[in-house]
Amino acid sequence: MTDLNPFFADLKRPYVFPIIEQKLEDCRKRYPDVQILNFGIGDIALPLAPAIVEAMVRATIEMGQSSSLRGYGPSEGYSFLRSAIAANTYQGLNISQDEIFISDGTNSDVANVQELFPSNCFVGIPDPTYPVYLDTNIIAGREKNIRILPCTNETRFVPTPPSEHCDIVYLCSPNNPTGEALTRDELANWVSWAQEHKAVLILDHAYAAFVTSDNVPKSIYEIPGAHEVAIECKSFSKSAGFTGLRCGYMVMPKTLKGTVAGAPNSIHSLWAKRTGIKSNGVSYPVQRAAEASLSEAGKKQTEEQVALYLRNAQALKKGLEEKGFCCFGGVNSPYIWCAVPNGMKSWDFFDYLLNTCQIISVPGSGFGKLGEGFIRFSAFSTEEKISLALKRIENICVSC
Amino acid sequence: MTDLNPFFADLKRPYVFPIIEQKLEDCRKRYPDVQILNFGIGDIALPLAPAIVEAMVRATIEMGQSSSLRGYGPSEGYSFLRSAIAANTYQGLNISQDEIFISDGTNSDVANVQELFPSNCFVGIPDPTYPVYLDTNIIAGREKNIRILPCTNETRFVPTPPSEHCDIVYLCSPNNPTGEALTRDELANWVSWAQEHKAVLILDHAYAAFVTSDNVPKSIYEIPGAHEVAIECKSFSKSAGFTGLRCGYMVMPKTLKGTVAGAPNSIHSLWAKRTGIKSNGVSYPVQRAAEASLSEAGKKQTEEQVALYLRNAQALKKGLEEKGFCCFGGVNSPYIWCAVPNGMKSWDFFDYLLNTCQIISVPGSGFGKLGEGFIRFSAFSTEEKISLALKRIENICVSC
Repeated sequence: MTDLNPFFADLKRPYVFPIIEQKLEDCRKRYPDVQILNFGIGDIALPLAPAIVEAMVRATIEMGQSSSLRGYGPSEGYSFLRSAIAANTYQGLNISQDEIFISDGTNSDVANVQELFPSNCFVGIPDPTYPVYLDTNIIAGREKNIRILPCTNETRFVPTPPSEHCDIVYLCSPNNPTGEALTRDELANWVSWAQEHKAVLILDHAYAAFVTSDNVPKSIYEIPGAHEVAIECKSFSKSAGFTGLRCGYMVMPKTLKGTVAGAPNSIHSLWAKRTGIKSNGVSYPVQRAAEASLSEAGKKQTEEQVALYLRNAQALKKGLEEKGFCCFGGVNSPYIWCAVPNGMKSWDFFDYLLNTCQIISVPGSGFGKLGEGFIRFSAFSTEEKISLALKRIENICVSC
Repeated sequence: MTDLNPFFADLKRPYVFPIIEQKLEDCRKRYPDVQILNFGIGDIALPLAPAIVEAMVRATIEMGQSSSLRGYGPSEGYSFLRSAIAANTYQGLNISQDEIFISDGTNSDVANVQELFPSNCFVGIPDPTYPVYLDTNIIAGREKNIRILPCTNETRFVPTPPSEHCDIVYLCSPNNPTGEALTRDELANWVSWAQEHKAVLILDHAYAAFVTSDNVPKSIYEIPGAHEVAIECKSFSKSAGFTGLRCGYMVMPKTLKGTVAGAPNSIHSLWAKRTGIKSNGVSYPVQRAAEASLSEAGKKQTEEQVALYLRNAQALKKGLEEKGFCCFGGVNSPYIWCAVPNGMKSWDFFDYLLNTCQIISVPGSGFGKLGEGFIRFSAFSTEEKISLALKRIENICVSC
């Protein structure tokens, strides 16, 4: 038989969502008449905003007419979308449209960006965090070069710069699953560290739209020096309900440099080359839909959706805290990171909540070893479901 | 500065399409009143069929309503599309829907599939062919492990099994750019070779819809034994005009095996793992559009488009041959592979055609060293433009 990539054998952590799906299925069978409240996967609960639907329908109809059909688009995305992002999201931050690469979502971007670096580089990855950073580096053969950045109570559930050297560092802020965000000072500290260590920061900023605190930047490029050390990934998934449409982007400033086989090179030019080879771009109607989310009407409609999710998060957090739970996040994030009471394990408390309250959460241990002892609640839900959940947890016993 | 992936330095071939784009631009300035006839890039010339537009509009509207919104879909694609493909394209070929992985196009699939194999494996790649196989293997560090499979006049412009060992082999049939397809006997020969060498065949079958010859299979799974050695990639881009919508798929039979760090493993399960980690699936409305292309109305409408492109190819080939050009392809493919006359180089003849006839082609050397001395014409065009092109080449001198 043919030898396959041996590093797949190093992927040991089971992916939690299929297990949750199975438990949900079993629960439905046991309680056929009870509404199960799903605060598990971080998926949207509201339909696409009208401005977005309208633009996407219009673009689809265009493609059915000879006078306006579109074939291959630019691999790096249409200029209309890149310039809308530059003007809206990066106004005043010195990011030009050709530094923005459109993709089918942040999941792909954070999975693929490691291809820019050597297979023997050292990689800093928070724990707990979104599992894709770790898994894609394992498949690329870097398991032994991973350096864990703890996100625990001691670090306010965000990563702090390590004492050991790393060549690249993934940051997720607001962090998924802890819901806590790096402040301006903390991000500035990371930028200084990266400058000193000649490291590249990869900031997964998929939840930037949820930032409400004044001391949390909405882009790393608000920090002086970031243009020389940081890549930023943003998404329309959570800000505009695109989880099913698929669109995101990566910002690579041209001032970000590295060496290729000893010769200085811009990371931007390498990524442009990689994008040209490996991608034929994102669906044209989807790019028009993303553009519409940045129109005046689109912004108003999607901001209302984000505000509703944040109100949900605050109501759920308040209710949990009143009940005696220790909670984090929920202010700059749709996620609440909840300490599991009574010294239980994550999965045990997950099962307890499902069986006693028919509530789905996500066990913190699914996001890394240091997530053990926590569960994550997603506030992508409706006000009614949040109220109902809080009524159900009235009767359970908690001490943490 | 941070060390970057050193293998980017091994990418030496310039990508031809941006150079062509620049020459087109210059030509427009020189001949502002002449219609330039573009038979260059293999992009669609006809709008999306009505059945496809209708399905995509309907799916988009669904996503704007609470009762029918869709968030994350399955990474490997929706069952409605996988089962439509299994029932239509693989009827009687013993391929089940869960052996079909939906993607955003064959370009991505042929770029990503090499991640399944070790970085030191030996790779067979045709020359000339679609450049993505070579470039993605170079970025993955396999430049020294590439074994070229000549597609020349001696091999009827299709690859033949090598005497040296290869672990994986890319086949493009009907081959882009030569327009020639592997016959049933030739494919069966490849399957036997792969069985003997414990190799995996990766068949890029993006142009399968253009196959008209009885002795050319529309799927490799028509060949006994192929389920144990072959991966097949197909696309809606050329069969249904999806170059701007982005949808394709890869077939990985569960019977295809390999070893991971010494342990037997199904390639299917590895790809499922990789897909779950690196992809959040393809846009829901695009998958509905692809499904519609396989409906009765969709099939009828898209088959008419393919038939028109094939008529164009035949008319163009006939005209070129009457003029004295030596041409290949154009029967099972929208591409005509034309020997450059008078001993000229590919780029010289490209320039000559552009300057004397205002016709865009693609220099064969852009598809590999052995493409030197040829140019490719794409028949994704209209009947009027083909007629006009044939009139313009009336006056040029040819001998080959």
